[in-house]
Amino acid sequence: MKTFLFFLLLFSISSANFTPRFPSPSIQSQKTSLSSSTSNGLYKEKFFTQVLDHFNFNPESYHTFQERYLINDTFWGGPKKNAPIFLYTGNEGDIEWFAQNTGFMFDIAPHFNALLVFIEHRFYGKSIPFGGDKKVAYSNASTLGYLTSTQALADYATLMTDLKNNLSATESPVVVFGGSYGGMLAAWFRLKYPHITIGALASSAPILGFVNITSPYSFNSIITNDFRNESENCYKVIKGSWQKIEDTASQPGGLEKLRKAFKICKNYISAGSLESWLYTAWTYTAMTDYPTSSNFLNPLPPHPVKQMCKAIDDPTTGNDTFAKLYGAASVYYNHSGTATCFDLDNNSDPHGLGGWSWQACTEMILPTGGNNKESMFPASSWSLNDRATYCQYAFHIQPRPNWVPIEFGGHNIKRVLKRFGSNIIFFNGLRDPWSGGGVLEDISKSIIAIVAKKGAHHVDLRYASSEDPKWLQHVRKREIKIIAKWLSEYYLDLAHTSY
Amino acid sequence: MKTFLFFLLLFSISSANFTPRFPSPSIQSQKTSLSSSTSNGLYKEKFFTQVLDHFNFNPESYHTFQERYLINDTFWGGPKKNAPIFLYTGNEGDIEWFAQNTGFMFDIAPHFNALLVFIEHRFYGKSIPFGGDKKVAYSNASTLGYLTSTQALADYATLMTDLKNNLSATESPVVVFGGSYGGMLAAWFRLKYPHITIGALASSAPILGFVNITSPYSFNSIITNDFRNESENCYKVIKGSWQKIEDTASQPGGLEKLRKAFKICKNYISAGSLESWLYTAWTYTAMTDYPTSSNFLNPLPPHPVKQMCKAIDDPTTGNDTFAKLYGAASVYYNHSGTATCFDLDNNSDPHGLGGWSWQACTEMILPTGGNNKESMFPASSWSLNDRATYCQYAFHIQPRPNWVPIEFGGHNIKRVLKRFGSNIIFFNGLRDPWSGGGVLEDISKSIIAIVAKKGAHHVDLRYASSEDPKWLQHVRKREIKIIAKWLSEYYLDLAHTSY
Repeated sequence: MKTFLFFLLLFSISSANFTPRFPSPSIQSQKTSLSSSTSNGLYKEKFFTQVLDHFNFNPESYHTFQERYLINDTFWGGPKKNAPIFLYTGNEGDIEWFAQNTGFMFDIAPHFNALLVFIEHRFYGKSIPFGGDKKVAYSNASTLGYLTSTQALADYATLMTDLKNNLSATESPVVVFGGSYGGMLAAWFRLKYPHITIGALASSAPILGFVNITSPYSFNSIITNDFRNESENCYKVIKGSWQKIEDTASQPGGLEKLRKAFKICKNYISAGSLESWLYTAWTYTAMTDYPTSSNFLNPLPPHPVKQMCKAIDDPTTGNDTFAKLYGAASVYYNHSGTATCFDLDNNSDPHGLGGWSWQACTEMILPTGGNNKESMFPASSWSLNDRATYCQYAFHIQPRPNWVPIEFGGHNIKRVLKRFGSNIIFFNGLRDPWSGGGVLEDISKSIIAIVAKKGAHHVDLRYASSEDPKWLQHVRKREIKIIAKWLSEYYLDLAHTSY
Repeated sequence: MKTFLFFLLLFSISSANFTPRFPSPSIQSQKTSLSSSTSNGLYKEKFFTQVLDHFNFNPESYHTFQERYLINDTFWGGPKKNAPIFLYTGNEGDIEWFAQNTGFMFDIAPHFNALLVFIEHRFYGKSIPFGGDKKVAYSNASTLGYLTSTQALADYATLMTDLKNNLSATESPVVVFGGSYGGMLAAWFRLKYPHITIGALASSAPILGFVNITSPYSFNSIITNDFRNESENCYKVIKGSWQKIEDTASQPGGLEKLRKAFKICKNYISAGSLESWLYTAWTYTAMTDYPTSSNFLNPLPPHPVKQMCKAIDDPTTGNDTFAKLYGAASVYYNHSGTATCFDLDNNSDPHGLGGWSWQACTEMILPTGGNNKESMFPASSWSLNDRATYCQYAFHIQPRPNWVPIEFGGHNIKRVLKRFGSNIIFFNGLRDPWSGGGVLEDISKSIIAIVAKKGAHHVDLRYASSEDPKWLQHVRKREIKIIAKWLSEYYLDLAHTSY
């Protein structure tokens, strides 16, 4: 069981990674391709010459790279009116993917006459240092070393300052938006660069999800509750399944039996890889348990956790645990119904998320793999040592688990920010496992927590749809109202404050 | 005249430098040595293992160095009472020198039962990376590259977090103090690390003294006014002296005449080096124009600018401009009266300030050398190109003049911080040429400007003395009152805020 747990922890989310990334590559035999940047009409693609290292002045730090950003000025009121700029602080993947899944900004831009800008995070998408050559950029710690959150924030500050100058829009207020790691960056950007942004909507941003701040059991506890709240049987079947898989795998012909039960393509299978495949399905479905049909990580029906439990509770499958699990996993892996078999070791990465494993080995030490007795996953504790061992193996590098709390804070956040800072919305949906590391209580009059009991991972940032439930409509209305207040205060200050 | 101006700008402060540093090495034939750290009883000297680069994860970034800090727990109330910690954020020199010139912290520590900590800035004093070998650390841009303000702030955050853990004093509030560049660091530390410090006393901190924020004429204008306010004749004599020196130097035997007039030791003399030597005297005396006798940059009598003008206005020297200048310069260079001759090209650096020229070539682009027609210095404009040319020559490096305003802000500071941040005191004395880049107006109820018309460079931070004028006593009382308020609010929050 020890080996299994090690594998479950280290490679649970994708075979290229070992810790729950915020989003995930689609682990499916089919691939969907994104529409091209210029043909979808949502934005124009531009590039900015960015410095490699903002915080030291070694000769190498002066090297530059092309950082991509997307821009849409359809709705902009222009610089003469000091019309606002809405900036998405890109996270760990192709920026087009995030732009296309942040419909909220497009939805509200006309109301605010806002310019929309989405900046891509360095080392992702097309924003690759070292001549744009990903093989070189990702080759070792000497090149990957420049992939950090602080450098990314400084990139955004630098690009935005230059862009505003070029647009003659230095007085235009900037509001930042971000979801998940992008939400963390949005909140941190407001805290560290208040001179560049007047406020931040940080959606599903687990800025407290670090070592010794949030329990490592929190993440999987929330997933467990998501399923258990649908049905006790659903929870029990999943909880009991891990041992059944182990037992079956250890019998002669057992792996072949499992392969057939789960329609695994004719290549590698092991108990660990199958468990990992299932863990991915349960975890990412919980994360994207949206009330409407969606296609963020994978195509999904509305309320997909409910659908999974429906499959597990289906009386027609009787006592056949594997048939039940297969039915549930198909909700995540085969909503379209066209897949004929599934790859367990699929390494495809359509959204270009590969750099997260580096970030999770350096500064993004978010403990998430712990399981207490109530967990639907096998009991286990989270271990920094395991992480360090992996990082040594994978990158010859030691994590700095204390760095993010030193640089960005997190301990006693209410006390610290009660009398410091302003204009941040922390949205969290409590069905989202990352909400355990989120800010769930108001900190001050203008650092506000919006908590949606039925919400999942940055659901508020998605395009509005006619099927949206009332609570989600209310969340967005409240966010719009708060952002409008920031802007009106800014314009008031602009009219009355010199200096 | 062009060449002279170039030299005046580039090498005015010391022959090793080209831009007014905050403090200055004593350019004098005599050297005073500091008392040893353990024998003076003011503090204990300790070292902390610090990481070389906090913001990237290249293998080199993991190299460490020994960072020095000084600590005094004589007055501390201890961790059980959550007694406060007063931290001096070290600036560009030996930390002992700053500790010894920040008597205010020692004066008020008993009242607050405060622990005193002074952290040395990387690359200064004994806090030298690359094995403590200054020759290696200062050898080229690849090693000097790690000498930046952002790295220093991260050093302070890291060391302070570790120290509080080690002292079991995680709930002890930290108040930061700093003067000059150290004051800039104190203010920025509060803005960037509010989770580590509850408030900052930023004394004579020209955080607005950067390109396109403060006029490059401001610095020398203030010096001019300091002298002109003493007497119009004093101003006129100095203003006319530069041409007299040039004229004399260009005559046969002129340099020898100048050498004798100013008692220059029997080595190198040129018009430029003499002018530079005088510029240093006027500038640093204006900066440290304290109301009591002092020994910060050089030993000085009370009101030294007044003393200089007294020497210039002395009727016994008649029309002998050089004798007048010599008398005035002697106030700065020979207060003790024991020097027999002066070195113009003295490169001694008793306080270990050599790294400032690197910082002034990378991020600390504080334009100060401009002179308008009213200036007592020869008319000239400040030029970024000149700076860049020098930096290319000296370090093979290009300055990043926009970086500090991007990283730390500065433009429209009142509008930005009106609704963001809290608990900063900006002290400025208006006789101090650096005050032109200071925050001179209150920004909010808790971001407060204290302006002393008769004050010089961080005079408030000096030991109190029985001769202190009333205005200075009032300034310090007000600072103490504000710090007491921060602390009482903190203890109130500590008692009532969980989370």
